[in-house]
Amino acid sequence: METKLQKLKTRLIEINDLESAAALLSWDQSTYMSPGGAAARARQLATLGQLSHEKFTDPAIGKLLEDLRPYEESLPYDSDEASLIRVTRRNYERSVKVPPSFVAQLSSHTSQTYEVWAQARPANDFAKVQPYLEKTLDLSRQLADFFPGYEHVADPLIDFHDYGMKASTLRTLFAELRQQLVPLVQAITAHPAADDSCLHQTFPEAQQWAFGLEIVKRFGYDFERGRQDKTPHPFTTKFSIGDVRITTRVKENDLGEALFGTLHEAGHALYEQGVRKDFEGTPLAQGTSSGVHESQSRLWENLVGRSRGFWKFFYPKLQAVFPDQLGSVSLDTFYRAINKVQPSLIRTDADEVTYNLHVMLRFDFELALLEGRLAVRDLPEAWRERFKADLGIVPPDDRDGVLQDVHWYDGIVGGAFQGYTLGNVLNAQFFETALAAHPEIPAEIEEGEFGTLHSWLKENIYQHGSKYTATELIERVTGGPMSIEPYIRYLRTKYAELYKL
Amino acid sequence: METKLQKLKTRLIEINDLESAAALLSWDQSTYMSPGGAAARARQLATLGQLSHEKFTDPAIGKLLEDLRPYEESLPYDSDEASLIRVTRRNYERSVKVPPSFVAQLSSHTSQTYEVWAQARPANDFAKVQPYLEKTLDLSRQLADFFPGYEHVADPLIDFHDYGMKASTLRTLFAELRQQLVPLVQAITAHPAADDSCLHQTFPEAQQWAFGLEIVKRFGYDFERGRQDKTPHPFTTKFSIGDVRITTRVKENDLGEALFGTLHEAGHALYEQGVRKDFEGTPLAQGTSSGVHESQSRLWENLVGRSRGFWKFFYPKLQAVFPDQLGSVSLDTFYRAINKVQPSLIRTDADEVTYNLHVMLRFDFELALLEGRLAVRDLPEAWRERFKADLGIVPPDDRDGVLQDVHWYDGIVGGAFQGYTLGNVLNAQFFETALAAHPEIPAEIEEGEFGTLHSWLKENIYQHGSKYTATELIERVTGGPMSIEPYIRYLRTKYAELYKL
Repeated sequence: METKLQKLKTRLIEINDLESAAALLSWDQSTYMSPGGAAARARQLATLGQLSHEKFTDPAIGKLLEDLRPYEESLPYDSDEASLIRVTRRNYERSVKVPPSFVAQLSSHTSQTYEVWAQARPANDFAKVQPYLEKTLDLSRQLADFFPGYEHVADPLIDFHDYGMKASTLRTLFAELRQQLVPLVQAITAHPAADDSCLHQTFPEAQQWAFGLEIVKRFGYDFERGRQDKTPHPFTTKFSIGDVRITTRVKENDLGEALFGTLHEAGHALYEQGVRKDFEGTPLAQGTSSGVHESQSRLWENLVGRSRGFWKFFYPKLQAVFPDQLGSVSLDTFYRAINKVQPSLIRTDADEVTYNLHVMLRFDFELALLEGRLAVRDLPEAWRERFKADLGIVPPDDRDGVLQDVHWYDGIVGGAFQGYTLGNVLNAQFFETALAAHPEIPAEIEEGEFGTLHSWLKENIYQHGSKYTATELIERVTGGPMSIEPYIRYLRTKYAELYKL
Repeated sequence: METKLQKLKTRLIEINDLESAAALLSWDQSTYMSPGGAAARARQLATLGQLSHEKFTDPAIGKLLEDLRPYEESLPYDSDEASLIRVTRRNYERSVKVPPSFVAQLSSHTSQTYEVWAQARPANDFAKVQPYLEKTLDLSRQLADFFPGYEHVADPLIDFHDYGMKASTLRTLFAELRQQLVPLVQAITAHPAADDSCLHQTFPEAQQWAFGLEIVKRFGYDFERGRQDKTPHPFTTKFSIGDVRITTRVKENDLGEALFGTLHEAGHALYEQGVRKDFEGTPLAQGTSSGVHESQSRLWENLVGRSRGFWKFFYPKLQAVFPDQLGSVSLDTFYRAINKVQPSLIRTDADEVTYNLHVMLRFDFELALLEGRLAVRDLPEAWRERFKADLGIVPPDDRDGVLQDVHWYDGIVGGAFQGYTLGNVLNAQFFETALAAHPEIPAEIEEGEFGTLHSWLKENIYQHGSKYTATELIERVTGGPMSIEPYIRYLRTKYAELYKL
């Protein structure tokens, strides 16, 4: 049996090598590649994707998994071996259910849609991309239908990102959250908005870059096993546990852009760098779900990086780097600026309170579209109405409305957004648990020390990779199911103090 | 038949995609990768190499080539279709002759040897690497024996780099060249060496970098289809005809290092960027041989980049970039400095006259080792003796003697060096032909214009990729066989003027 497991591992590592190569090709495309490389690069990525898919859906893998079933059942559920077989089987069964011809059709349609969207967005021309999105919606439903027996048509699509999560669960969770968030947003916006003009002076790029790196080094991001490069759309990527890279973009007139972007991506990277090294090359060697991943990026960006204690330590250093710009700006003014709450048009620029309203709106539209309650042609109008109702503002055009996010135009409709809000909910829940175990963490943060927090996260979350599902992990770590209470407590406490609510 | 040709092309492009991905992995390893990525990267490269080898040696390719033979024979020899089939068959027949188990054995031995060499060189410890090199020599002979019927055991190994070239031809060629070069070196070194201290001041990196790029842009290197990055050991690489990258290293106390390195690599890159776009992804889409490739790097580096006319235009610009360092150094002094001839220990630092003696020495040792006339254990002593005889100096240690080049420790013994000297011979022959067709080229170079030269090279050499063998190409371009006369004429004229011989 161990020989069969070894055979399975050898195949999985080979597949992972192809996937890692593809990840490097994508990283290069977003960071350094000249425009002339684009056409061949698309083809190279398609070739690698097709090869790794072929190799993973090889019936020999199915046979090995079948042969290994008795061995798996003889082992404890949470043994590494049983977990590897279990997680591989889950991925395998998902992969073989979708016919290769459909994968090719979807991939080709998605590429075309992306090209059309890339022109339609700056031109504010939803009509141009509408027929493509209609086809995408159709394909998304077809994709779901390869997984019969679902409760909601979105469930199999959500499953790709947040295994085990269901539309019904998310609806309940988001409804509860919404009930708490809307009054909070109203209470905050009844007060005058914070003045964040101090962030919009001119901050030379090199110093911004160095300052961000200094912080994430202190977080524990290991530059011997990663690096940071510039890109138009920041992301984190991994070529091995020893090579986890972050990217960022710098705006000289917006201090928050690179700073919080770097902290956010470093959170993702700490997770991937923290996976157990002996999981290397297997399906266990990556974060377990979109929601848990986002919980880590947002924990380091917001719960740590937008906290008052954190800036008690770092703000004098930041002032020393930018004495002309910040020398006469108080810590309190700066702290208010980086935590300004204000309804805004763009999800990625939203503050931590209103952010979830952006996500829920998209999630609800995904369900409505998939269920057929909403037609694609009615989406722009629905977007404006819902925006007015939830955030009290109306996007002046579709460019900053329904066309703003790439997700639906670069993939399917369904499953792409819930992870962001799950991340917000979970980051508070995990952080509260960490603080209960180590009440010294806030004091350490005020000293620019993150060792206790990082070790706790590594021990409890990072090292396990995908060994446990998100649900199992939350239960193991917090002793209970996912709950919005810690997140609401966190927001209420922080913003009550800030806005004297 | 066209369907079969299309099938063949589809397979070849898929293989090329894997090779291009591997090239990017190597580029990244040499430019940006953090040390933590090394172990997985080696494995990823091995996986990609094995997959592309498997796919290229698939009997289905042999069958397609066989089926296409009548079609090929019905076409003109130099039609694109016949050339593609012919060159693919040549590569295929070479690849299938070597058993995969031997490829794996050689690759594993080579990796080990490289690791040992990387420690042995700084420690000046030839004995440490000697048994590995003995094994390498043994494997090199075995490799040659997979190609029975050779005239000299080195011939199949030379063939990998310079197709159709034979040890006997090279021996004759090198003997003639040597006969001309040795007296020239003696005549030059009878004079006091040029003073090149002006190159060894402090030149800040950023300005060196920008100046080199400015020149290669004028050469015609297209930055929309490439870029330059830093690396410890400069090289040129290609991921597609639209993405050909160069690398360089900068020494602040040696102006020549980055400058001529950039010009050299740009020469390689101009060749690869100049290949016909419709050859993309096929075996025709790359330079035809090591010698022809090196002829282009050295043409742009030396015949253009170390000429007086070139610096008439560029030296005032260089002085403007480095006024403190070069403001009071005359053009003549600078020109002499960059063309200083002096016997030296390291091949890669050698001037254009003595350079070939370094290459011939290595070539002769390769033949002697392969023939069994020289034992590996006697190599260090033989190196010292030959160095004294040829260059009049003796390396003080093996580090800067027999251990200096990576080639034998990172590959096989045989075929790795002749290309450098073939490149020197050919660059003069090609340049003389270009000048005969376009006598205005030198005047244009004095104006910083390279369009006529670049167009001529593209039209006559670059566009054809591997369609013609080196021998065919030389015949087509110059109307005759390879000849050392233009190169000797070039050296005599240039150095007679410089040293008043």
